[in-house]
Amino acid sequence: MLKQLSTSAFFCAKRAYSNVTGKINARKYVLTKYFQGEPKQSDFKIVEEELPELKDGEILTEAEYLSVDPYMRAYMIGYKLPTDMIGGQVANNTAYFGVKEILYPKAGETIAITGAAGAVGSHVGQIGKILGCRVIGFAGTDEKCEYLQKELGFDHAFNYKTANIKTALREGAPNRIDCYFDNVGGEISSTIMGHMNKYGRVAVCGSISSYNDTTLPKVTILQPSIVFKELKVEGFLVNRWLDRWDEGIKANMNWLQEGKIKYEEKVYSGFDNMVEALVGILRGENTGKAVVKVK
Amino acid sequence: MLKQLSTSAFFCAKRAYSNVTGKINARKYVLTKYFQGEPKQSDFKIVEEELPELKDGEILTEAEYLSVDPYMRAYMIGYKLPTDMIGGQVANNTAYFGVKEILYPKAGETIAITGAAGAVGSHVGQIGKILGCRVIGFAGTDEKCEYLQKELGFDHAFNYKTANIKTALREGAPNRIDCYFDNVGGEISSTIMGHMNKYGRVAVCGSISSYNDTTLPKVTILQPSIVFKELKVEGFLVNRWLDRWDEGIKANMNWLQEGKIKYEEKVYSGFDNMVEALVGILRGENTGKAVVKVK
Repeated sequence: MLKQLSTSAFFCAKRAYSNVTGKINARKYVLTKYFQGEPKQSDFKIVEEELPELKDGEILTEAEYLSVDPYMRAYMIGYKLPTDMIGGQVANNTAYFGVKEILYPKAGETIAITGAAGAVGSHVGQIGKILGCRVIGFAGTDEKCEYLQKELGFDHAFNYKTANIKTALREGAPNRIDCYFDNVGGEISSTIMGHMNKYGRVAVCGSISSYNDTTLPKVTILQPSIVFKELKVEGFLVNRWLDRWDEGIKANMNWLQEGKIKYEEKVYSGFDNMVEALVGILRGENTGKAVVKVK
Repeated sequence: MLKQLSTSAFFCAKRAYSNVTGKINARKYVLTKYFQGEPKQSDFKIVEEELPELKDGEILTEAEYLSVDPYMRAYMIGYKLPTDMIGGQVANNTAYFGVKEILYPKAGETIAITGAAGAVGSHVGQIGKILGCRVIGFAGTDEKCEYLQKELGFDHAFNYKTANIKTALREGAPNRIDCYFDNVGGEISSTIMGHMNKYGRVAVCGSISSYNDTTLPKVTILQPSIVFKELKVEGFLVNRWLDRWDEGIKANMNWLQEGKIKYEEKVYSGFDNMVEALVGILRGENTGKAVVKVK
């Protein structure tokens, strides 16, 4: 049983069960050492704790699936250790608000997406197609690119590990880029911003390329593109639109029912394999949303 | 005599005079070689040309002062050579629209400015003070910093060549930065964005630090700050607000008359010294606006 304390924060990596005394215990991941490079099992200990009694208005739910997302690597800095590992529910409308509020693409415009085969990227691309845009994606394997083009309807998808990015941009975006959904940061983002149109918009959703680095990497300076193309580059975390949560969920549900949006899941098994799952998605093992099946 | 073809573009570096035949000739700078590093006199030739006759609605004005600005270094790429050198009038409301439309600071917020002693930077800081903000500036000499603090009322000014930027930010902006007016790009901008508050705004007006480089330099990646602080980073060129030119001029005139804004000028002498003036401002010789007195 998992105590649902809020829509985000506290709790994903926590599994609870009733014991013979009727009290409710939970297991959780506690970070005991700051990450160096990739997260390691030895950076955590799994702690069992007794949950407080429910108060009026609180509910207790059992977690069947836990979410694993790149931000979980990036957030665990600056806390006094040991501290509970963060995590969230299995819910995604990050893509919806990022596209609608930050990129606001018009039909006929071109959208570029990095981390395009991930949970958010693959969703962004499909919303772009629904809105009548040309969509090009960058992902880390040829299989992912094929999936994006054949299954999800991307106009072009390129393997960023093997493609020449500038050539890919010329081929995939002959009218250049109007909107860029940036999941990765890094040199590829500098190159893409150099290929944008005047008044282009950039939604910065993540910086996966740098999460495992101890010191932040250096990449080609962005300011010349930003000023001479008058770009607007905006970072966002989805809880900014917490009061519009329902709107995002409804829109996505409608598109799903109409068959306009598809999704893939990468399922890891077992609460004890949370760290393995986190390392996996940072390496790009997943296509679509990554989740951990608790039992 | 200078033919006023538009409010920007064509022609600042052009000087005309009546000759004995009554025709009107002008001299102009023509770029014959792409810049490598600092601009050099040998990258140009000065060409004399006969101006076409005036048509209805056109006027001819004599240039007494010509403007010299950092963007003139940055713009001269990608043209088929030889081409006329760009330039503009002596008029500045860049600061007004950058502050009002991109930073929209609230009283009590903290504004950081790089290239703070330049024409635009010194203007931005004074507008910030008028709006009730805390203002900190970064400039290239101790004398400029003293001028910013003692003459223009900046709360703090630091010599970026000798100061530790992180220490300066902690001292000058104990409540961190809400608005950043970026004239320079470069590593200092990455450091400042790392010291910003959530929902901070960045107005990217220039990238002076990289204008003389043949290939763009690499600096610490910005995306982690942009996403986790949900920053909005927007580049702009002032001609976006051409239809509101009068508004900017009137606001500045009022502040000048009320003694709320002061300005300095660095005056270079002679049309033949335009290149020297351009190199000078890229090296940071000027405090305030740089102009060339034609005669």
